[in-house]
This record gives sequence, C-alpha cells and structure tokens, in this order.
Amino acid sequence: MSFDRLIEKIVEKQNPTVAGLDPKMAYIPAYIKEDSFSKYGKTLEGASDAILTYNKGLIDRLYDIVPAIKPQAAYYEMYGWQGVRVLAETISYAQSKGMFVITDGKRNDIGTTMEAYATAHLGETDIDGEIKEPFGSDALTVNGYLGTDGIKPLFSVCKDKDKGIFVLVKTSNPSSGELQNLELEGGQTVYQKMGTMCEEWGEEIPGKYGYSGVGAVVGATYPEMLTELRHSLSKTFFLVPGYGAQGGGANDCRGAFDQNGIGAVVNSSRGIMCAWQKEKGLDQRDYAEAARREAIRMRDDLRSVIGEMHL
Amino acid sequence: MSFDRLIEKIVEKQNPTVAGLDPKMAYIPAYIKEDSFSKYGKTLEGASDAILTYNKGLIDRLYDIVPAIKPQAAYYEMYGWQGVRVLAETISYAQSKGMFVITDGKRNDIGTTMEAYATAHLGETDIDGEIKEPFGSDALTVNGYLGTDGIKPLFSVCKDKDKGIFVLVKTSNPSSGELQNLELEGGQTVYQKMGTMCEEWGEEIPGKYGYSGVGAVVGATYPEMLTELRHSLSKTFFLVPGYGAQGGGANDCRGAFDQNGIGAVVNSSRGIMCAWQKEKGLDQRDYAEAARREAIRMRDDLRSVIGEMHL
Repeated sequence: MSFDRLIEKIVEKQNPTVAGLDPKMAYIPAYIKEDSFSKYGKTLEGASDAILTYNKGLIDRLYDIVPAIKPQAAYYEMYGWQGVRVLAETISYAQSKGMFVITDGKRNDIGTTMEAYATAHLGETDIDGEIKEPFGSDALTVNGYLGTDGIKPLFSVCKDKDKGIFVLVKTSNPSSGELQNLELEGGQTVYQKMGTMCEEWGEEIPGKYGYSGVGAVVGATYPEMLTELRHSLSKTFFLVPGYGAQGGGANDCRGAFDQNGIGAVVNSSRGIMCAWQKEKGLDQRDYAEAARREAIRMRDDLRSVIGEMHL
Repeated sequence: MSFDRLIEKIVEKQNPTVAGLDPKMAYIPAYIKEDSFSKYGKTLEGASDAILTYNKGLIDRLYDIVPAIKPQAAYYEMYGWQGVRVLAETISYAQSKGMFVITDGKRNDIGTTMEAYATAHLGETDIDGEIKEPFGSDALTVNGYLGTDGIKPLFSVCKDKDKGIFVLVKTSNPSSGELQNLELEGGQTVYQKMGTMCEEWGEEIPGKYGYSGVGAVVGATYPEMLTELRHSLSKTFFLVPGYGAQGGGANDCRGAFDQNGIGAVVNSSRGIMCAWQKEKGLDQRDYAEAARREAIRMRDDLRSVIGEMHL
C-alpha cells in the first residue's frame, strides 16, 4: 500500500535516490537531436522524439541501480501535447523496467477537478464503460494550499490502485520561506501546519512499514527543518529535492532518514542527466554511462551517512 | 499589457463572465459521442474527439457575447495526451473567434521549471533555433505557495507576449480556510498575505486601466473577503469562481468590482456547459443554444448588480 512498493525497491537496491528526468534541449547529446530532427524537423514532435530517446537511454543504464524516476511535467508540457505523449511513454518505459515513477506535477484543485487530476496521473478513465489508463504513474506531487478538499479526492485512487502522493511542505528554493516560514497564531509555522495536515491525511492510507501514502516534499537545502520534520512527522515519507545542483549534500539529507535508514528518497535531476557534460573528453554516446557513474557516486555518498537500509 | 486585452473585451461585450470548459463525458450529448466513438472507438482518442466537437459547438454560440473561456487542464489530462492535444486545439479555436483564454492549470514550481511552465502555456519554445508555440494561452492560473521564486519566472513572458497570471488567494471551496484563513503573527491571514504579495508582484507588470498582469483567484463563496480584498488590492484583477453550481450569486460577486464596474471576471462552468440538461424537452442538438441562453441570463444577472462597465 502507498509507498511500500517504493520503500521495498529502495531497500532492495540499497539506494534511496530518485533520478529526476527534466529534459531540456541543451541536455541532450547532439547525435540524438540530429537523428530526431532529420525525421521530424526542428518541431515539437522532433524535440519530443529526441527527449524520448534520451530518456530511454538513461533508464536503460539506471534501472538496475536506481529505484525510481521523477519526470517533471513542466519540461514535457513545454513541448506541447507531443511532449506530454512522451511523458506517458517515459512513465510506461520506466515501469516496464521495474522502476517506481513519481510524476512531479505539483497539481492542485478541488473536488471533482482534483479527482480528474488523480484519474489522469494515477488512475483510470471511464469512457462510457471502457476503462483506459491516461498516464498511470505511481505517485504524484501535489500542492496543499487549498486544504483537505484538494487532497481527499486523491485517496480513493491511492487506496484502490496502490499509489501515493507527495504534498509540498518546505520547498528547496531560496524564497520558500516568504510564506512557508511565517508563524501562525499558536506558534506553528505555515510549513509545520502543512506537515501536520500531511500526518493527519496519511491516517487514511497507512503503510506496512510505518509510512502512509501521503508523503511530503522537504528540501535538502534546509537541513535543520528536514531533521525537525522527520521527528514531528513520523508517518510521513519524504521526497527530498535540492541535492547536488541546488547545493545540498549527503550530510544535509541525513536528517530525513529514520533509524532504519528509510523514510525518504532524495532527488537529483541535472546532476545525473548532465553528468556527461562535466566529464572531459567523453564521447557523447556514453552520456548514459556518465549518468550511471554519477548515480553510483550519489548512492555511495548517501550510504556513507545513512548506513544500511533495512525494513 | 497584462489584463488590458481582457478588460477591453469585457467592456466591449458589457459582460464580465468567463465560460469554464471542464468537459466530462457525462456533459456531452450522446449524438456527439456516438459519432466520435464510431470513428475512434471508446478510447482516449474517441473521448478527446467528442470533447473537441462539444467545445467548438459551445464556442460558436458564445464567442459574440462572452469575452473569455477557461479550460480546466485536469479535464483534458484525464484523457491522456490525446486530451491535452484537444486542450491546445480548444485554445486555438477560441482565440480564432476573438476570445481571451485562461488556462486553469494552477501550475507552480521554481526557477527554470516555472519558466518551463510559462513557456509551455503562455510562451514559445526554442527548439535549437526554431520557435514553436506549445499551447499559447492568454493567461494561466498559478499557486504561489513557493513564493517569489515560483512567480517571477512568469514575468518575462507576461511582459514580452502580453499575457497574465492569476494567483490563488482565497479559493471557493469549503476547506479553503484550513490554511488560507489562519492568522499570521502581525494579524494578517495567509490569504491576505498572498494577496499582498500579488499586489507587490504586479508592480512589475502594470496595466493601462490600473490593473496589473498579476491577478488573484478569489471565490464568490466568500463575499465579505471578496469585498475586503477588492479594497486592499486595488491593482489586482480578480478571477472569481463559485458562481452558480458552487452556490454564489450575483450579489455575492458585487464586491469584486470597482466603481467603473470592472476589476473582475466571474466564472461559470457547469452552469453554462450543462444548461442543456436542465431544459425539459430540449433536443440535444440544441445544447449550445441552451448554453447561450444561460450565458445571457448570467450576464444580465451580473449587470443588474454592477451596472454599466466602462474604462
């Protein structure tokens, strides 16, 4: 139930990382783009075709050591519906290799509209009796600003189809404190209140390893808050952005984990995707090998502070 | 600049309403679905084809009296990339008829990722030198929980391409107060703080009628807060959901408007889309006529409390 499948994959691979797939044209080796552009031109379709080839190459060299990917919806929508089709194809390809997929969409709305997002990204659409799966991801990031009306509509798909959500609590960006750090009457900050709501919402979707299906996004760039939230939110699994390119290191992530070395998955996007651009003299065709080397380095970096992960 | 184009269309049509296009299979007349299913089966493609036909029929009977449409992204994503293609086609069709289009996506992220959303929905994508427009909407709803890092990346596209954004401030749902109504140290509530940030962000995108390119979503279901926010946020244009199906009436919306009868656009989705299901004995093929009748009724209802709109 909930994040149990992800936790099992993390322990099996002894690796609490998720590879962010946020493809931009500038990250894709020229030979891949040339091939796609020769087929479709420099069009939304050509760009999307290049992204799919690039993503599949990365997944092929990561799936046996990394438990999960996190495609960021914005970078697919940027290439129109053609890019959104490649989001669906990327999700499906990663799952066929046994990976857990977190769609980073930060979706939010209320009632039946939030149900539509749940159906779109995690569930199945009923077309006058025929059942189809639009995107079929394993988890979705969501924004809880609208309160319970924006979160509850996700629960039935999480329960019925064994899916999870990550609610934004304390984001990794410099200005996240403008609203999130403000103190409310009674002394809690806005992010603490959001965390408390996650813990309460999670009671409806318990998991067998102690973590519910309602996770929280908490940035590695605020390590003290990460530690504080791990203590106060004992049933809430964390998705931790901010490692690598945004400045967070393994030590900054330590607080996200419990005494069994579980409780969180740490994201790296550019660090892994663009590793090939940092290795001097590398043949571009080895871009996925470079990504694998960086993923192993990151895994070992995190292991060095967490130790062995066990259920 | 910013919402000037929308304000001009509102005054020209003497109608401050936006028709929400949130298509569900249950809202679409059977003859349209039968035709699409006969071509594509009960598939994501078949459902999407039916939605496009339905939307175009509505737009054809609304564009001369209603200034804007608001497609809700969730209801298109629910039908996969095929549905997202129909979102793009609906935007383009409405614009070809002179309508202003607000994509209701409530997008939110930080830095380059938020830039990608801005590019996707409002801007143009650079594909190694070739410029393509993925969705090309006129405005986008966004969630400001991440602070300035999540809003500033939208400004350059708003300035360069004359687009606008609506930030969620006080949403129309029953549980919106769980977070939004909480009082911060100093006495402001969370929604008031978000409104103040909108007013400040808007200074970078001023408009010639006094309203900036940073608007706010404020629900008609909280009329006192609507009135209070209109007074405190004098440069912030409002998108007002909650009229009709959610329970708000014209009197509840009155506070959103200034002394010139401008300052807000009021949304109705199900009220207009499903008007045909409420008229007894109606031929389904007249579904768009019923939508037009409801749109005229709503326009006259709002006019009766606002009076004449002028620049």
